[in-house]
Amino acid sequence: MIYLDNNATTQPAEQVVDAMLQAQRQWWANPSSVHRFGQQVRGQVEMAREELADLLGCKSREIIFTSGATESNNLALRGMTAARPDRRIILTTAIEHSAIREPCEHLAEQGYRFVHVPLLTGGLVDTDAFAQLLNEHADDLGLVSVHWANNETGVIQPVEQLAVMCKEKGVPFHTDATQSAGKIPIDLASTAISALSLAGHKFHGPRGVGALVVRSGARLVPQQRGGPQERERRGGTENSPGIIGLGVAAQLAGEYLASDEPARVASLRDRLENTLLQRIDGAVVNGVEAPRTSNTTNIGFPHLESEAILILLSEKQVCASAGAACSSGSLEPSPVLLAMGVPEPVAHGSIRLSLSRFTTEQEIDQALEIIPPAIERLQATLPQ
Amino acid sequence: MIYLDNNATTQPAEQVVDAMLQAQRQWWANPSSVHRFGQQVRGQVEMAREELADLLGCKSREIIFTSGATESNNLALRGMTAARPDRRIILTTAIEHSAIREPCEHLAEQGYRFVHVPLLTGGLVDTDAFAQLLNEHADDLGLVSVHWANNETGVIQPVEQLAVMCKEKGVPFHTDATQSAGKIPIDLASTAISALSLAGHKFHGPRGVGALVVRSGARLVPQQRGGPQERERRGGTENSPGIIGLGVAAQLAGEYLASDEPARVASLRDRLENTLLQRIDGAVVNGVEAPRTSNTTNIGFPHLESEAILILLSEKQVCASAGAACSSGSLEPSPVLLAMGVPEPVAHGSIRLSLSRFTTEQEIDQALEIIPPAIERLQATLPQ
Repeated sequence: MIYLDNNATTQPAEQVVDAMLQAQRQWWANPSSVHRFGQQVRGQVEMAREELADLLGCKSREIIFTSGATESNNLALRGMTAARPDRRIILTTAIEHSAIREPCEHLAEQGYRFVHVPLLTGGLVDTDAFAQLLNEHADDLGLVSVHWANNETGVIQPVEQLAVMCKEKGVPFHTDATQSAGKIPIDLASTAISALSLAGHKFHGPRGVGALVVRSGARLVPQQRGGPQERERRGGTENSPGIIGLGVAAQLAGEYLASDEPARVASLRDRLENTLLQRIDGAVVNGVEAPRTSNTTNIGFPHLESEAILILLSEKQVCASAGAACSSGSLEPSPVLLAMGVPEPVAHGSIRLSLSRFTTEQEIDQALEIIPPAIERLQATLPQ
Repeated sequence: MIYLDNNATTQPAEQVVDAMLQAQRQWWANPSSVHRFGQQVRGQVEMAREELADLLGCKSREIIFTSGATESNNLALRGMTAARPDRRIILTTAIEHSAIREPCEHLAEQGYRFVHVPLLTGGLVDTDAFAQLLNEHADDLGLVSVHWANNETGVIQPVEQLAVMCKEKGVPFHTDATQSAGKIPIDLASTAISALSLAGHKFHGPRGVGALVVRSGARLVPQQRGGPQERERRGGTENSPGIIGLGVAAQLAGEYLASDEPARVASLRDRLENTLLQRIDGAVVNGVEAPRTSNTTNIGFPHLESEAILILLSEKQVCASAGAACSSGSLEPSPVLLAMGVPEPVAHGSIRLSLSRFTTEQEIDQALEIIPPAIERLQATLPQ
């Protein structure tokens, strides 16, 4: 199997799996229990919090463990707007993941309004337009939410710059970092970002666990109620095996980012992308004009159907995707690509190939043997 | 170690741990992915849904997988009241877990009102008073929520009877079954219950995964948004290893309930309880007047401090608790016991001992050697 769908989910690292196995076999007490067994697990949960704080350059007490990025995003959007209920506008983009888009639409049914920032070529936020919208709406803005890296194209938004602009206006800035955490260096302490979402399973950590970081001073009304866990910001028995696994994933990601490995992944992605562009007539890379995470390429094959490409590749053992896994099965072209200005015949035939630090040279070699003839076979079926 | 804190959390069954290990090592794809690898995981998630449906006597499509019982309870309370926004009263009890109490208080800040049903001795819901409140408020009741078994005392509420009364009035009935699922037989199809919450880790399943069952015909406004997962009722990448583990736990619980094991656990609990009552002056069992789950005993030692008892027991390797783990560290007496009418000097000195199918005869023997002298030692320090 050639797994090129790492933006959908990644293989858990063996060290993560081992730590979780130990947590389930040996350290399975409830960390809120008074007894020593519970307190030993509490210690491990707090160590994991430190490890994640180290990866992100924040304080451990700023971390709220959640069930994943979708919960983190929902919590940020509802919890941060609820903290300043007189401000009813959310500034965001049309190319967010559905875990931002859909809660915004839900809030819009409850008296909120969301405004989309205009985008430049490649899908980058237009910072001039952003500044203008900030000026125009500053007093009514409950939250600004712009993702760090796009899940479909890997395009990296200038979130640090946007956050500074927000801070100057006294508006909290949230970023969905699900596709950047563990992939690019993040040092929250040196930014003006108020809150950040991530999920463990996008960087070789466990499924079912994530975090919302809420920086000191940023306000949040807790949403999931039912106990004093997470400093009364998220009730419910801690998923301690998941949290312990996330801590290990954070530590491994820190080691990865400090190594030569990101350059290796980037060169594999570049070779994959460039070779496909050379070999396949009409192929275009979406978002190529902008800075991108080094593991992602989104390639359009005009007039083809992405669904057909994916099924054919799947038969040949290549795992890829079109847009978010969360919208798989939809036959509509990706709304993210359309909002970026990608023409419909290209968007319709675009697929995402996403690598990870586990991707091998050999997998890329094999992908390059399989993908071009598969695309040619589908192109041959098009009306002349 | 003598683990008598199974209402806080249980040891994951080895078969659960093995299934999750395989899910993490081999079946780690995103079940929403189009490719075959993703679809194989999808198949496993849906098998787990069938296994849980079998345990509960419901349809698999009525199950919404969540991150645990706290999320399930929050989703039920918010999601079911939001479905009929003109009805602003929630009927519940004062002895619910904080995962019901706290969301109710939060809803009360948002224009809702909650009414507590009067209780009989032992903490049972007064069904006459319940009927009267139903009559009085029927047109304004958005939801009735009464737990199945109490987490502190094991007292079993007549939820099937209450649900029928609600159905007659056209009011949806939710039950927090966190402490009964996997412990007593449940056959939802033969009841009028509209919705039920549970968590995997209370019956030897994984931490960080639970379910809300919403019966066909009951209405729910989804809360966590961000994708079409769980039939658009709970967005976010599925915690497939957790769900697969929960499926195995459900299957094992079904086998347990069909065996002689519940009787063995009940006899161990009875021996523990009766021997402690015999040996310790002044000891009383809270909730003894009512039907109880066979794994739980809540014993009061008047004038002692439960925190001191727990710490002393912990030093002697006995894991126990006072009230919910979620309120550990609080020096206040349990609000649940006070609401049941337990006098304050008893409530202050009450501890919960909770068994599971993994509890051995030997553990009970050892507990009976350790607990009486520990209590006597503390009683000796009391002013005469």
